[in-house]
Formats: sequence, structure tokens, C-alpha cells
Amino acid sequence: MEADKTVETSINIPADTKSKSKGKAPLSISSKTVVEPPPKRGVKKGLAIGDFVLRLCAMGATTGAAVTVGNAQQTLPFFTQFLQFQAQYNDIPTLVFFMIACAIVTGYLVISLPFSVICIIRPLATPPRLLLVIFDAMVAGLTIAAGSATASIIYLAHNGNPNTNWLPFCQQFGDFCQSVSGAVVGCLIAGALLLFILILSAFALKRS
Amino acid sequence: MEADKTVETSINIPADTKSKSKGKAPLSISSKTVVEPPPKRGVKKGLAIGDFVLRLCAMGATTGAAVTVGNAQQTLPFFTQFLQFQAQYNDIPTLVFFMIACAIVTGYLVISLPFSVICIIRPLATPPRLLLVIFDAMVAGLTIAAGSATASIIYLAHNGNPNTNWLPFCQQFGDFCQSVSGAVVGCLIAGALLLFILILSAFALKRS
Repeated sequence: MEADKTVETSINIPADTKSKSKGKAPLSISSKTVVEPPPKRGVKKGLAIGDFVLRLCAMGATTGAAVTVGNAQQTLPFFTQFLQFQAQYNDIPTLVFFMIACAIVTGYLVISLPFSVICIIRPLATPPRLLLVIFDAMVAGLTIAAGSATASIIYLAHNGNPNTNWLPFCQQFGDFCQSVSGAVVGCLIAGALLLFILILSAFALKRS
Repeated sequence: MEADKTVETSINIPADTKSKSKGKAPLSISSKTVVEPPPKRGVKKGLAIGDFVLRLCAMGATTGAAVTVGNAQQTLPFFTQFLQFQAQYNDIPTLVFFMIACAIVTGYLVISLPFSVICIIRPLATPPRLLLVIFDAMVAGLTIAAGSATASIIYLAHNGNPNTNWLPFCQQFGDFCQSVSGAVVGCLIAGALLLFILILSAFALKRS
């Protein structure tokens, strides 16, 4: 795209092309810093600010999800001499994975904020942006994996599966199930936001 | 980065900067069209070919996963007068979702191949690449969601969960479980490949 642009300027002032043979250095400072960059730079800056805001939203969603699942606990009002009926996140291994994954994602998003700020300050710098893209892709995968694994388990807890004799337990532990369902929705929203951040990064990286 | 480059050239030949005030046109044709593009184009072309190959691999993985789960069927050698013990993918709703998702992803990957070929032929064109990035991100999310949802169910089928009274059934239906486990691994590999394709696209889109 840039090649087109420079060809255009050489057509406008053809008399000057012979200065090339005199060994003069290319001087594209004035036209670049003054005329073109502002709109391009502005768009990139807007994308970088959007990236930062989305990152904050995703961070809120994963933090909320991790805290909700960690605190989801329900004890039924009846108990026998030896047994108390209680539901907690560590009764289900998938929920433990969910909580750890959400905590990791939150931690990563906190660490990524300074890089996002660098991208706002210097919208045309590619290395921090590429670094973010690589880790964003991994973390988006982790978030979606955690969210959907827990979604399938909580679907089972709500509806059960008569074919495999897995009975639902959400009739008894309604509050617990509701908390976890909310957390799953939050986590999946965070995953979708991270994918959207990846798409934004692609637009921020593209030439012209 | 480009701003840095031009600043650098002005530092190397400081005597020439006054020609800017004389209103001379910028002449960066020679250095740009002759020296830089060939290697840049080659790298982009390599990235586009890698994208195409990875896409084929992901397509193979999702096709295999969908076919495996669709054909996974096991009938136990004993039966009563009214009941025959049989395991099939439509006994578990998550497996139905898994199969549909894998089929959708395979279909998308087939459709995306021509666009990938366009990116090989014209490595510097951004619109087809951006189109691919947007849909790749969605499809990567779908693939990972399907894979991990099924992974959590198949983990339950292998190990059960005594806290919720969900008993494992893989002792009885070993072959069925093994087929589905293989399909899940294939699907998750496809998801990882799609995320890697996204990262490659980011590198293909970047300036310089």
C-alpha cells in the first residue's frame, strides 16, 4: 500500500527524481509526520483504547467468576448423625479447574494492562502488540475451555442424564447451581471478549 | 517503527535536512520498492503457506473427530428380554453438540481454503486475511468449547464423581469411551491449531 503512495508523490513532482542519482538521501519526514499519520494513528489509538477497556471488562468477568465459584457453598437444612449435606466447589473437579483457570486469566490480564497502555501511547509499535496477541490467544483458549467444561457439568447438574444414570442435584442445591451458572456465563463472556480483543489486534496490526 | 527509520536516515545525513525547507518532495522510492519488498513478500508468502497447511491439518482433525464420535457405538454382549445395553453418541447431549460443532468447523475450514489460497497468491493483501481472522477467532472458540465440554463429560464417564453419585460407565463401555476420548483429543488439537493460525495471521498482517 505504501509503495502506491510513494509512486503517487513521484508522479506529482517528476523533476525531482534525478536527485536520486546525485546520491541524495530520501526525505520523507515532513509528509509522513505531518500529513498522513494523524488519521491512521488516531484509528490505531482508538483500537488500543478499545483493547484496554475490553481487557478491563474481561478482567472483571473472570474475577467475578472465580470469586463466585470459590464462595458458592450450600448446606442443606437437614442432616443425619454422621452426614451433613453440603455442596462446595471442590466436590466437583471441573469446578476446581474452573476456579484456577479464571484466577490465571485474571492474573494474566492484570499483567497485560501495562502492555496495553504502551500500545495506547505508541499506537504504531508492533512488538508489544504481537506479544499481546500470542498470549491473548492462549488465554482465550483457556478461558473458553474452562467455561464450556463447567457449562457441560452444570447442564448435567440441572437436567441429569437418564441414559447414564446421572441424576440432577440442582433441585436440592438450587442456590449453589445458580451461583455456578452465573460464573460460567461470566467466564464465557470473558472468553468472547478475549477473542474480540484478538480481532481488534489484527485490525491494529494491519498496514495502511 | 517507520517514524524511527526515517528519523535515523535524517541523522545519518544531517546536511540534507535543510532541503525540506526548500519544498522538495520526499523520495523514498528507491529504498522501498527495490530493497525491502522482496524479503517481506517472501516471509508473508511463507506464513500464508503455513496457514494453508495448518488449516488442512485442523480440517483432518475435526473431520476425524466428527466421524469417530458419529460411529462410536457399543452394544454389550448380554441383554434382558426388554432391555439391550447400548451406548451411542446420542445418549449424551454433549456428544451431539460435539459432533455438530466439529461438522460446522470442518465445513468452515473447507470454505476458508480458497481465501487462504488467495493469501498465498497475494501475500500483501489485507482484506481476505482480516476476513479469515474474524471467522477463525469464532471457529477457534467453537472448537475449543466443544472439545473441552466433551472432555469434562468423558472425564466423568471414566472416573465418576462419588460426591454427586455419578457413577463411571467406562468399565462397561470401554471401546465407546476410548473412541470418544480420541475424538476429544483430535478436536482440542484442531482448536490449538486454529489459535496458532490466528497468531500466524497477526504476524502476516503486521507492518514492516
